[in-house]
Amino acid sequence: MYNCVICRYHEIATKGNNRNMFERCLCDNIRHLLKDMKEDIQVRRVRGRVWIEKCDKSVFDSDMLERIKSALSRAFGLESFSPAILLPADMDVIRDTVRGFAKGIFDGYSKGVKFRIRARRSNKRFPLTSKDIEIDLVSLVAQEVGSDLFIIDLDNADITLGIEVRDEFSLIYFDTFEAPGGLPVGSNPRVLTLLSGGIDSPVAAYMIMKRGSATDYVTFHSSPYTPQETVDKVEALAALLNTYQVKGTLHVVNLLPLQKIIRDCCSERMRTVLYRRAMFRIAEKIAEKTNCRALVTGESLGQVASQTVVNLDTINRSTTMLVLRPLIGEDKLDTIAIAEKIGSMELSSVQVPDSCTVFSPSSPSTSVPAALAAKEEEKIENYMQMIDQIVMDAEAVTPQSGWTASLQ
Amino acid sequence: MYNCVICRYHEIATKGNNRNMFERCLCDNIRHLLKDMKEDIQVRRVRGRVWIEKCDKSVFDSDMLERIKSALSRAFGLESFSPAILLPADMDVIRDTVRGFAKGIFDGYSKGVKFRIRARRSNKRFPLTSKDIEIDLVSLVAQEVGSDLFIIDLDNADITLGIEVRDEFSLIYFDTFEAPGGLPVGSNPRVLTLLSGGIDSPVAAYMIMKRGSATDYVTFHSSPYTPQETVDKVEALAALLNTYQVKGTLHVVNLLPLQKIIRDCCSERMRTVLYRRAMFRIAEKIAEKTNCRALVTGESLGQVASQTVVNLDTINRSTTMLVLRPLIGEDKLDTIAIAEKIGSMELSSVQVPDSCTVFSPSSPSTSVPAALAAKEEEKIENYMQMIDQIVMDAEAVTPQSGWTASLQ
Repeated sequence: MYNCVICRYHEIATKGNNRNMFERCLCDNIRHLLKDMKEDIQVRRVRGRVWIEKCDKSVFDSDMLERIKSALSRAFGLESFSPAILLPADMDVIRDTVRGFAKGIFDGYSKGVKFRIRARRSNKRFPLTSKDIEIDLVSLVAQEVGSDLFIIDLDNADITLGIEVRDEFSLIYFDTFEAPGGLPVGSNPRVLTLLSGGIDSPVAAYMIMKRGSATDYVTFHSSPYTPQETVDKVEALAALLNTYQVKGTLHVVNLLPLQKIIRDCCSERMRTVLYRRAMFRIAEKIAEKTNCRALVTGESLGQVASQTVVNLDTINRSTTMLVLRPLIGEDKLDTIAIAEKIGSMELSSVQVPDSCTVFSPSSPSTSVPAALAAKEEEKIENYMQMIDQIVMDAEAVTPQSGWTASLQ
Repeated sequence: MYNCVICRYHEIATKGNNRNMFERCLCDNIRHLLKDMKEDIQVRRVRGRVWIEKCDKSVFDSDMLERIKSALSRAFGLESFSPAILLPADMDVIRDTVRGFAKGIFDGYSKGVKFRIRARRSNKRFPLTSKDIEIDLVSLVAQEVGSDLFIIDLDNADITLGIEVRDEFSLIYFDTFEAPGGLPVGSNPRVLTLLSGGIDSPVAAYMIMKRGSATDYVTFHSSPYTPQETVDKVEALAALLNTYQVKGTLHVVNLLPLQKIIRDCCSERMRTVLYRRAMFRIAEKIAEKTNCRALVTGESLGQVASQTVVNLDTINRSTTMLVLRPLIGEDKLDTIAIAEKIGSMELSSVQVPDSCTVFSPSSPSTSVPAALAAKEEEKIENYMQMIDQIVMDAEAVTPQSGWTASLQ
């Protein structure tokens, strides 16, 4: 019975001069998420809302509605949405429509179900007030189904009939679904996420996309000391994350040449910090080449030895580029909850060797001063040339989700 | 009836070599939070738990329990806690005790209440298994109160009686209260939070304390262009935040001399970014002087013009010190929810002028490249000397919560 889906946003509505840009970005993203149906539907902005309708204005079938619901759950910038019946702003038409489906409202509910009608009238020339509309329609429903079938409960209803009367049209809906919130991905410049097979970095990428930045990815392996699965797993995670944005490239980097030299030349207890400094330098160079404007990591304060304040500072000083760490203040259990929600947890849980653990010390230092790390790096001949060579050897791939399939 | 409070932690238990340090830090913090009662109670570590008992082993009165509950809700590193009855690990004593209060369990509940007993036995030499203990005690309770008073419901009980049997003792409890989680404040080095009167920066400080770093604060005003309340409000927020840690100093900085020169010499549209770069430089110098190892801000990606990826990067390049931005990936509504939980929202909601808005442009640029900002700053004679002078003029205060009182 629904011939449109109405989409609501919140933070975008607070934007002054740039609101138009954010709204356009949101509509473009929704069109992308619904690209499989692009022949049949249209997405438009109407006064602070986004509308999805079929081109021929007919009613959505349930399969289409399911696909739209699934797509909108990935549309950053949206707060909520409702499948709705679009009607003229005419009380007689509204009455006829409600009369038509009144009995259907209570299908599957038993006697005494709690019901309410919530009306909103932005069209101030409409002859009835919001309250009038509510009373009018409740009486009409009671006439149709009998007044003892339901109890009016304004605070805690099982069924809510929502109605909005606007200047040119009105609409009726029952269900409101939550969308992810945030800002439309693409409304902020592109960034580069340091993506591993762990739990944290995919969640970090998701959170930054949710704040408007599309992301590419860089991942590190130590082939042949790490197996092909190390990269396959990250590729599958990147493919999953890409379902939230239009496109994200994965840069695959073999860190082994540098790891070997760090093992041979530098203090064992500093190894992890020195690896991370190398990764940041490589990531910064790739970001600059590919026009990404910041780095993103899954670092969380105090979680592991390389994430103490001192070691984070020492690692941070290897780059001048902005590093976004959306999980820096999060507890692991909260991060896991997000990983489960976005679907990355299942992939991250599969145990696969990681490049960080290659030659890793049994007792890494939790406090490597920046000056000391720099001094260790001076022991490596041609350090920056090696970084440049590794960047040149990096491979850019379009992530495929094949590994997920083989997992199941 | 409770003679101890048992405190549980989670993340600390995953720490290998450093677990001891974290546990000691947690106990010290709990002692500090309970310092008003320090003559009467003791806080000890016992095999992966922290215990609070009265020195004379007697029962807590309800006032003491309330004060302990309030204190533990601020103890970062704790996951949960329960007021408990401490007993010998002897089934006859346990039975006698349960028999003694069996009727009291159901006070205030009506017939048919859902009840369960949850036993845990870490003492493997104890003659009964966990399941045996549960069955034994349920029968005993049924005998005492009559078996038709309650229904056993293992999944969804209204009342849970918890019992743990350990090597040296056993304990019984009913309620489990949530604690804030995270890591004990002080287990990571001290940091410096850029604190304003807004909603975001107090929440950022809270999140970083929750991950183990104690924090000092730096705030900026533009006296006489901003009133005394600008500083008073921030001082009240700092005093509130200090209830979560042992001590935090507030550095009060007058930014006006530099703001005037930026107004006179530099591009109007870049003003906000140039203010922020000056604030970061001043904060870094104060942090270095006071042995704080990182800066903390409430910045959130895309929220305002100075928080686009490009402007954040340009601001970030004014300092080499690590900047922790725990809200960078958060939506405003989620930040507000935390502000309400920790009690800062009420203070932050009071409208008071802010130094950022002094001479602020009507249409700030959302994209100031770092090189351009640096060029604007070159127009200011003796820029770094001015920064140094402002740092020298900064005033360090111990935050008092007076402004809260005058507000109410």
